Amino acid sequence: MIIVMKPKASVKSVSQVLTKIRELGLKPNLSKGRERTVIGVIGRVNVEPEYFEVLPEVEKVVRILSPFKLASREFKNEDTIIKINGLEIGGTKIALMAGPCAIEGKEQIKEIAWFLKEKGVRILRGGAYKPRTSPYSFQGLKEKGLEYLEEAKRETGLAVVTEVMSSEDVEKVSQVADILQIGARNMQNYSLLQAVGKTDKPVLLKRGLMATIEELLMSAEYILSTGNNRVILCERGIRTFEKYTRNTFDVSAIPLIKKLSHLPVIADPSHGTGIRDLVTPVAKAALVAGADGLIVEVHKDPQSALSDGSQTLDFKMFSKLIEEIRSLCSICGREI
Amino acid sequence: MIIVMKPKASVKSVSQVLTKIRELGLKPNLSKGRERTVIGVIGRVNVEPEYFEVLPEVEKVVRILSPFKLASREFKNEDTIIKINGLEIGGTKIALMAGPCAIEGKEQIKEIAWFLKEKGVRILRGGAYKPRTSPYSFQGLKEKGLEYLEEAKRETGLAVVTEVMSSEDVEKVSQVADILQIGARNMQNYSLLQAVGKTDKPVLLKRGLMATIEELLMSAEYILSTGNNRVILCERGIRTFEKYTRNTFDVSAIPLIKKLSHLPVIADPSHGTGIRDLVTPVAKAALVAGADGLIVEVHKDPQSALSDGSQTLDFKMFSKLIEEIRSLCSICGREI
Amino acid sequence: MIIVMKPKASVKSVSQVLTKIRELGLKPNLSKGRERTVIGVIGRVNVEPEYFEVLPEVEKVVRILSPFKLASREFKNEDTIIKINGLEIGGTKIALMAGPCAIEGKEQIKEIAWFLKEKGVRILRGGAYKPRTSPYSFQGLKEKGLEYLEEAKRETGLAVVTEVMSSEDVEKVSQVADILQIGARNMQNYSLLQAVGKTDKPVLLKRGLMATIEELLMSAEYILSTGNNRVILCERGIRTFEKYTRNTFDVSAIPLIKKLSHLPVIADPSHGTGIRDLVTPVAKAALVAGADGLIVEVHKDPQSALSDGSQTLDFKMFSKLIEEIRSLCSICGREI
Amino acid sequence: MIIVMKPKASVKSVSQVLTKIRELGLKPNLSKGRERTVIGVIGRVNVEPEYFEVLPEVEKVVRILSPFKLASREFKNEDTIIKINGLEIGGTKIALMAGPCAIEGKEQIKEIAWFLKEKGVRILRGGAYKPRTSPYSFQGLKEKGLEYLEEAKRETGLAVVTEVMSSEDVEKVSQVADILQIGARNMQNYSLLQAVGKTDKPVLLKRGLMATIEELLMSAEYILSTGNNRVILCERGIRTFEKYTRNTFDVSAIPLIKKLSHLPVIADPSHGTGIRDLVTPVAKAALVAGADGLIVEVHKDPQSALSDGSQTLDFKMFSKLIEEIRSLCSICGREI
Repeated sequence: MIIVMKPKASVKSVSQVLTKIRELGLKPNLSKGRERTVIGVIGRVNVEPEYFEVLPEVEKVVRILSPFKLASREFKNEDTIIKINGLEIGGTKIALMAGPCAIEGKEQIKEIAWFLKEKGVRILRGGAYKPRTSPYSFQGLKEKGLEYLEEAKRETGLAVVTEVMSSEDVEKVSQVADILQIGARNMQNYSLLQAVGKTDKPVLLKRGLMATIEELLMSAEYILSTGNNRVILCERGIRTFEKYTRNTFDVSAIPLIKKLSHLPVIADPSHGTGIRDLVTPVAKAALVAGADGLIVEVHKDPQSALSDGSQTLDFKMFSKLIEEIRSLCSICGREI
Repeated sequence: MIIVMKPKASVKSVSQVLTKIRELGLKPNLSKGRERTVIGVIGRVNVEPEYFEVLPEVEKVVRILSPFKLASREFKNEDTIIKINGLEIGGTKIALMAGPCAIEGKEQIKEIAWFLKEKGVRILRGGAYKPRTSPYSFQGLKEKGLEYLEEAKRETGLAVVTEVMSSEDVEKVSQVADILQIGARNMQNYSLLQAVGKTDKPVLLKRGLMATIEELLMSAEYILSTGNNRVILCERGIRTFEKYTRNTFDVSAIPLIKKLSHLPVIADPSHGTGIRDLVTPVAKAALVAGADGLIVEVHKDPQSALSDGSQTLDFKMFSKLIEEIRSLCSICGREI
Repeated sequence: MIIVMKPKASVKSVSQVLTKIRELGLKPNLSKGRERTVIGVIGRVNVEPEYFEVLPEVEKVVRILSPFKLASREFKNEDTIIKINGLEIGGTKIALMAGPCAIEGKEQIKEIAWFLKEKGVRILRGGAYKPRTSPYSFQGLKEKGLEYLEEAKRETGLAVVTEVMSSEDVEKVSQVADILQIGARNMQNYSLLQAVGKTDKPVLLKRGLMATIEELLMSAEYILSTGNNRVILCERGIRTFEKYTRNTFDVSAIPLIKKLSHLPVIADPSHGTGIRDLVTPVAKAALVAGADGLIVEVHKDPQSALSDGSQTLDFKMFSKLIEEIRSLCSICGREI
Repeated sequence: MIIVMKPKASVKSVSQVLTKIRELGLKPNLSKGRERTVIGVIGRVNVEPEYFEVLPEVEKVVRILSPFKLASREFKNEDTIIKINGLEIGGTKIALMAGPCAIEGKEQIKEIAWFLKEKGVRILRGGAYKPRTSPYSFQGLKEKGLEYLEEAKRETGLAVVTEVMSSEDVEKVSQVADILQIGARNMQNYSLLQAVGKTDKPVLLKRGLMATIEELLMSAEYILSTGNNRVILCERGIRTFEKYTRNTFDVSAIPLIKKLSHLPVIADPSHGTGIRDLVTPVAKAALVAGADGLIVEVHKDPQSALSDGSQTLDFKMFSKLIEEIRSLCSICGREI
């Protein structure tokens, strides 16, 4: 059971609810957002919603059967729309995020940023901290990368999304990022989820390589229950036995998540396939299946990219993708 | 290396090629189709194509690196278009196949057939022989089912596709079916593949639950190399760890197969997801990713269907699917 | 609900049971074995066992919750022991089956057979019909292979197990085989399962690459319910994302199947790993986990084997495996 | 290429090697352990080992083809033996780690600890920080749990292994733990791997649910290359399509890792199966396959455990497991 307090409910009213919960032998889970406080009741609840609804400053009480609560459609029926610098993610808008896998230098990121801006993209991606399977692979430019990203952002006016790999770095990355990305490998790094849950930044949460949809929503729940309700989910392919592709893009996850949750869902066809030629068809598939946006790897010269070259589009291929996406959007009743 | 003989090449010319191959210490694989003979050379070939090209009635000689030969784009660059009673599968056409999972009675199949005809569908699906995990589940009406299917076909003029589960049944099923379906569980039942390879019926070959794309193409190769070159491939979901859906529909398989092979590929969003609400979004996703058609389970009253009820559309949902597919086709440059 | 008739129950008594079942609006499943008749009641049964137990010649009536009935421990609590020419599979015995992947020639199979006999192995394996992913790979010596196998059997006195791939071949293969093998790819080839179910030969049923344990038991149920109760199950590895090994050997399947079913279970560490060096440790692991036997690929010269060379043991490695198995058996309270 | 410096090599000698590497246009990776310094050369090396071997205080130079270097058998041929308070992990010893999933109270952990000590177990496991899929599940007693664990350790003299979930907690946990555990979900949490790599504590690294064996060894490489060479690997089951068991225990991973790496490998049959009845057979299977130890969940009253109850052994079952393990050890030439 979830108890939603009215905006700016007083400390006293909140305490009263907590007391009532404890009197029933149950455990409250307090989630203090910037706007309102939500209290989860953990354990088997034997009272009716009215039991709490009559208390002062309680707005609504919802019974939720699914294991994820704040992330569920039962908790919030209307789609969540996340606003960032005048942009909207969710609703009728298609959010386009694009850029290189890794920030490799100041000129590289700025050149790509200007190209994307011209194509109508409004969110720039680029990794400063790169999680790599091998300790001997390029690990990203780190602080230097953030600096370059900030410069590209300032010059072009694009919003930026970049990965944070460790709770120690959350503050530093938040100073540049408009959206904090949690990578697939960290989807169940709970201390990191709680760290970004405490910020006021939207979080792009990528599905783990072998995470079920329920586990993805439970990880979102970690962020939501820490007080940050601006979570964007991302389908990016799962690990299967198929060998041609790097991952198997689970297109049905998109309409399924939209049915189970109010959170926006975007698709990453670059990691989802690992093969340049498949990025555009899978991006289009994701869109008509209901995705709220795309995150795509683009590089001026993919052959020389320091990571993920084989799944990265060059400027020409990306221009063509954008065109095809635009014409699809028109018949889906959506706009970029 | 693949040696393609001219149409109606003489037995003598074919023998000459076989002799040359054996002289090199290699093994020929003879594939006698209704129209032409194709000879595969098995083993490491150390001669140039010219070695065979100069022989009488040899049309062309192709070196093929991939393990599948006749199914590959290297062997045949242009898309294969399969003609059935004035219909075309492949090319610019989108083939729609629909109908109940199982034929349950004469009236049931006829009523669905008339409904589909009215909606513009031209191929009726319906199982007379049903492969079921349990020996105690409904196994289909068998001969009786074929009879009802034939009657529905005769009355409506629809073409029909139906599954054949055993080489003993191939002849019987071929008398009714316009397209022979090989189910996912039989994708590597090689004696069945060879049996349908000897017929003159198009074959709808479904991907096995845990078959790689390469294995699917190798199974098609069994049919092609037996002499039947009218094979339609079908992506119908693979088995993964995800539990919400019955299978994970591998949308990237579609553009990937189109790249590797000249054979048409259709999508089965019903088995691909196992959930009624996901059928339409996944059908649309498959189309924009390049599928040449769809096979969808439709029933007048899915709740009472003897099998697969939870993934079957009712008439209303199917009508809506058709509408959405039509509007997508227009922007994809394809037509139903 | 399962109704077991007394041995040699009359046709009249069986009919009476069938009538009673139909009167309840339920469907009987008749399984006539060589010794006794078993009748499954399909559908939701609302009567108590006594309802049927009072009928003439009914031996017992069992309620079974699991989807597999005749294969379940609920149906038969004591371990099934299968007798073949004085050998026993199941119980305290460890059955050793070994031999080449494919029969390649008369001398090859005889030489291996004599070697194995000397090592104490009593069941010879060897494929005459080989299911291969590619139609261009060696497909086995077929009839010729069976002939050589028969000769090896006659000379050495070993029992033989060999694969049957198609219902048309069941009779032919049965003339030579003491045990009919159903390969992993055919685990859900139901017409083949029913064909071997009609023979009086023990059946070695291999788990499919993508089959759950429940599905394996359901496939066994197809054979059992057709009247053949001598089924040996085989764990041979499943398909996962791991790339070093050919398959992932599911060792926990062994104690799990022993818990769910009364049928004997053997292990195939050759296909289960695909790597020669892993065969012995995995064979030992399977044994201590409760396996009733092993089936292992052995060849005089694995490097030159026509198939599966990389997972095949040579004579020296096999001799060592046997030694290690013997010393393990002693502490497991089992004997070869 | 890996360059191993002599113990206590001077800063000057190390610098000289670094300079030589950079002169070749390559990148050095410096790993300063407590005893010796190891320098990896990243990139394609075109010089012979002698090029570096002649430099002062260089002990040896090894060319390594596998992507993991310090973890490989090529780098170090003899088995690594890890010493903790007079205990040895690796070599001929079987390390037994056991205890509750979570520390639930002071009496609970002490009672279990005394029981285990009596049974001959020398390493106590118990989670103070618990990674849970749901933010509403019991998350462990945290600092309080560490306190109780320390008390149990002090009283019984057992060594303790406990999980650390976040780099912030490494110092705190290290004050109590003799072995730091990295859980499956954090196997690719690289900042955590580097944090434990900087301590002088042995690290128990669990294989991720979705991690290949190569990825597990690459994660070990993160720890080794940060300067901590005391890593124990743990097979604990991977995620597959099988539904009866929680995970599929990959028994072949054990001999495979032993072949590829010098690091000790232990098995976790509790998480590996998720089912109490399967723990003992799988534990035995792991041992005969070559495991260097076991980590098993034990609780006085599993039914009332706050987590993982269904896979936890009670005292009686654990006593029986120990007995069976002891008798197996004798014939494997190993001792507890």
